[in-house]
Order: sequence, then structure tokens, then C-alpha cells
Amino acid sequence: MKKLIAEILIASGIFSATAEARFVLETQGSFFAGGKVLEESGQTLHGDHAYVFYQIPVRAKKYPLIFLHGAGQSGKSWETTPDGRDGFQNIFLRKKFKTYIVDQPRRGRAGQSLSAGNYEPRPYEMTSFDVGRLGIYPEFFDGVQVAKDSESQNQLWRRGTPNIGNFDANVASDAMKSVFERTGDGILISHSQGGGVGWLTVIKSDKVKAVISIEPGSGFLFPEGEIPEPMPSSSPFGALSGESIPLDQFERLTKIPILLIYGDNIPIKPVDDGGRDNWRVRLAMAKLWIETINCHGGQAELISLPEIGIYGNTHSMFADLNNEQIADVMENWLDQKNLNGR
Amino acid sequence: MKKLIAEILIASGIFSATAEARFVLETQGSFFAGGKVLEESGQTLHGDHAYVFYQIPVRAKKYPLIFLHGAGQSGKSWETTPDGRDGFQNIFLRKKFKTYIVDQPRRGRAGQSLSAGNYEPRPYEMTSFDVGRLGIYPEFFDGVQVAKDSESQNQLWRRGTPNIGNFDANVASDAMKSVFERTGDGILISHSQGGGVGWLTVIKSDKVKAVISIEPGSGFLFPEGEIPEPMPSSSPFGALSGESIPLDQFERLTKIPILLIYGDNIPIKPVDDGGRDNWRVRLAMAKLWIETINCHGGQAELISLPEIGIYGNTHSMFADLNNEQIADVMENWLDQKNLNGR
Repeated sequence: MKKLIAEILIASGIFSATAEARFVLETQGSFFAGGKVLEESGQTLHGDHAYVFYQIPVRAKKYPLIFLHGAGQSGKSWETTPDGRDGFQNIFLRKKFKTYIVDQPRRGRAGQSLSAGNYEPRPYEMTSFDVGRLGIYPEFFDGVQVAKDSESQNQLWRRGTPNIGNFDANVASDAMKSVFERTGDGILISHSQGGGVGWLTVIKSDKVKAVISIEPGSGFLFPEGEIPEPMPSSSPFGALSGESIPLDQFERLTKIPILLIYGDNIPIKPVDDGGRDNWRVRLAMAKLWIETINCHGGQAELISLPEIGIYGNTHSMFADLNNEQIADVMENWLDQKNLNGR
Repeated sequence: MKKLIAEILIASGIFSATAEARFVLETQGSFFAGGKVLEESGQTLHGDHAYVFYQIPVRAKKYPLIFLHGAGQSGKSWETTPDGRDGFQNIFLRKKFKTYIVDQPRRGRAGQSLSAGNYEPRPYEMTSFDVGRLGIYPEFFDGVQVAKDSESQNQLWRRGTPNIGNFDANVASDAMKSVFERTGDGILISHSQGGGVGWLTVIKSDKVKAVISIEPGSGFLFPEGEIPEPMPSSSPFGALSGESIPLDQFERLTKIPILLIYGDNIPIKPVDDGGRDNWRVRLAMAKLWIETINCHGGQAELISLPEIGIYGNTHSMFADLNNEQIADVMENWLDQKNLNGR
């Protein structure tokens, strides 16, 4: 009976220390959002939707978090880390957020694409090691926040999953708009390529109440006539350009709080290794973008983690060894913006 | 305070009626299992693994359930039903089972395939309506256990997700063997094409303690020399053949309890509509297969739902309107086999 009472108290969250090992959910489930229907010879194909898995903890905070992965990833990236610790899915559930984890159209469990494509198994992991800022292959950066044992590395390199057909930020953001119609007002947490999809989603949906974008790397949108010069780079992806949109669309981005977070080992001056230089130009572009938004009356901010004393973070900081600390940085910001309450 | 105590009791499962609305989890997470590494020009690609999402309820039963989807599906199929009710993931969590939901290699979140392939968005839903035994397109069968409203149908037709590269039952069962190494002794719940992958998994892994296979449709394995004649059919997939394996491998299938479940609207005599006739030959082959296993000393059983008074079930009975009833049939069988305890 004593054990049972202890279990009751733990499950209820009253014993908060022990309760950290548990999840008490009001409900959970999954759905598809958005998409189109292709018709041909009297048959149909439903496709180009997003897949969403959601969990609602008891006594949840008001605004749900909607997690959108980056290029070549799926919602898996927000779950358990490669070294088997809690990812952002579990960390933010413990913080009493409703979580919605997306696979964007043409990816993962939302694979029924309306776009044709060829797939070739093309080894790319050396390039990805460098661009992911684990180090300069095969050497890890000193103090990098990743587990280097072979099973953790094995798990890390299996988390990719390819596009089926073409990546299309418009198709993805159309589906994300539908995701927000289902969730209601919420906060978008995007990663990398998902950043660009996210800005289009903000323009299309008034239900996005704030965005935290982790190392957005493309799709920086500027008003017509204000687009910066392309930035040359030794990145394997070449020079980085901004993208131009009409001013009235851009202005939607000035109406909500936006936070960009970048990790460590991003140089200020050009370097030969393309992995780090890739992020040099992206961080520089992000700073110009933040300035532009704020010049138009916006409320965008950028946190460079080493500047606040947090070192060693890679491009996938949500899965890094100190991911609890990164989650705290995010929660503190939501707190400042009054978006952290019940 | 009264409300808080009520919440505690509900969360703890003491108020069982209300507690049905909640999930109290010890932990949850995801991992990749199995797979290989392709090397080329000094770069690597990890692929052909399975993806697994798991949830461990408090006071769980001893044996975990490992859910393997069918052709053209992902783990999503076991989650929320098209009409928004609990799927087997939630139903069996409430029954206090540990659940492990798999995306097999080259599918869904396990999309990093080591096999090349082309994808064409090819409408197929009329065929699938018939083969899934919803009815004869566009007419639903009388009393069929599916929600016909447009949003439920929209969700239903979005749950497919294609192979990336070729389907290979050997690659899939290799990964499933690795899944069972991670879960330990457990019970495999397979659907359709997953049935065939499952028998190979049983042969490869001694950790599969029982199998419940929902409408297996291919991959019926017979000992050399005991393979039945092919069964001609008006099925869009043509005649059905068994597959031959060495006797010593077959004998592994006689060592564990096996249950096959088939739904409604499966004719005994040949019919012109290929959707139903497809299942006529599969059910006939399944009966021969059960006989063969039991002649070799096995303990295989087949439940035809209409024969026990349960009507209207489609090929995807786990998502049908009466899926709670189907889950009870499964749990009762596990109970009989002493596999339902803590």
C-alpha cells in the first residue's frame, strides 16, 4: 500500500524529483494535415500532407510546441538522442508543454508524395560530419557536445531519411498551415531547412504566435529591394543568397517574437574548411535578417550560444549532450515573452 | 485540493473508468535497430535499419508487444484511427502492455535505404478500396466497420507511405531480429505483408515468444516437398503460391503459439471481384498453412471473425470501428496462452 501511494504521488507530479522519470498524459495520437489529391484514370492518390504525432500532458501549458525537423530528417530527430537520453520531445513534455512532432510532406511517415523522384543510396556522412559541425572529419572538435562511442555514432547516422520526390518549401508550408489549424495558436520550433519552411508558415498562418528557429540555414526572406549581396563561401553548398518577398508578406514576420539560436565553432572570418564556413555565412545572413526585421518594427533576437557561455554545440543541439541546457535557454526566452504559462 | 486528489487518483489508475482517458508512462523513446553500412569514395551511408518508437506504462505486463505494419504502411497505422479514435498503440497501452511500434527498413522514418529506386505518384486507391475490403468501389459493404465521412476517409487514404528502394523480406526480418534483441522476449503483432516478414523473424530470433498475425497475405512458408499447388484468383495480384524453406527452419514455427485473424466479407467460392477473391485464396492458404504447422507438432490457430459473431471487419481491423473488440479477442488469446501477466 505504501508503494502504491508512492506511485500515486510520483505519477501525479507531487514528488517532482522522482516524477521526472514519468509522463502523465491526458492523451496522445497522430493525424495527417493538409495535402492534395491526384486523380488519374479514375483512381485517386492522397499526398503532400504532413504527419503529426502529439502528446498532451496533464495540467499542460497554454501554447503547444510544434516541432519541424530539418533537411534529410524526420520527427525522429526530436525524440531520443543518439546516445539514448531524452530528446526535446520528452524534455518539453516534462516542462508541461503539449508537443506536436511533424514529418513534413514527402518525408518519413508522410511519404506519399505527389512529386516523382529517383533515390540512390549515396554515402554523404563525411560531408555531413563537417557541415553538422561535429568536427573536421574524422577529428571531432575539442569539447564538442556529442557522444563519440560507436553505438551513439551508429544511432546518429541512422536518423536521416530522404525526400520522396522534391523538397518544396511551399508544399511543406501549406501543410504546416494545416497543422496549425488543427493545433490552434502555437509556437513553432524549427531546425535548419525547417527555418525557411517556418517563415513561409508564419506568412500563411496567423496561428503561429512565436518561432524559435535552431540554426536556420536557408530560406532567409527579405522585402523586395532590401535583399543583401550573395555571400561567397567554401561551403559544399556554395554562396548563400537571401530570397525576396513582397513587403506586405514580410511584415507578417515583424508581428511575432522570433528567436534564432546558433551553436559553437562558427568562425567570423572565412576559413578553408567548408563545414564551418557554411555556418559563417549563414550566421552573418541571420544577423542581417534580424536587423531587417527589427528595422521594420519586428521583435527578432539571435542567441549565439558561445556568447552566453555555452560551448561545443553542433548543428543538432537538440540532441547534444547539453540539450537540457539548450531547452532551458528556450524556455527562459518563452518566459520573457509571456508564452510559458498555463 | 479535492480536484488535485481526484487528479492523483485518476492518474494512478485507481479510478479506472476515468483513468481510461490517461496514460501514465514509466518512459518512452525511439531507436534504430539493425541495418548495414555502405562505403564508397571514403564516405559512408548507414541504412536498412528499422525505426522503433516505444512506450513503457507503469506496472506493465511482462511481454512487450512489437507491432509490424503491412505493405505500403508505416507504424502510423497502429496509432490514431482515421476517424480519430484510439488505435492499437493506445488500446494496448491501457491494457498495460509495453508497446514497440516499428517502421521497417526502407519505409517511413527508416527511409535511409541501401537499395535504389524510382518513385512515381501512381493513384491506386480504387484498387486498395477493394483489396482492403471496404467494399466494391465506390460502394461500401453493408455494415462495414469503417467511418465513411469525408474527413475519416481523407485520413484513411493518407496513411500509406511508399518503399524507398525495394521491399526485401530478408532485409526487413534481419532488422526485426535486431529489434527483438533490444526488446528482449516479446510478442510480435504483424499485419498483412508484415506476416511474411514475421515468420522469417521467428526463424531468425528465439526472442519471439508468440505471434498474432492480422490477415497475413503473402510469405506463407512450407517445408520443402509440402508446398501446396498455386491457387488461381481474380485478385489484382494473380495466383497465390506458398514459399518453400528447409524443414529445420520451418520447425521453429512449430515451437511458439501463433494466431492468425481474418475479417469479414471473404468468400469461400471464387468470385469475380478481385478484392474479395484476393482474400479467398489467402484465407484458404492460411488454413493449409495452419494444418501443416500443427501436423509438425505446432500450436497455430486461426480465428475467422464472422465465425465468432464479429462482422464487417476490413483488412485493417486494428483501425476499424470495433477495434476495441478485436483487441479483446487478441488479449483473450494471450490470456489462454499465459502471455498476459505481469
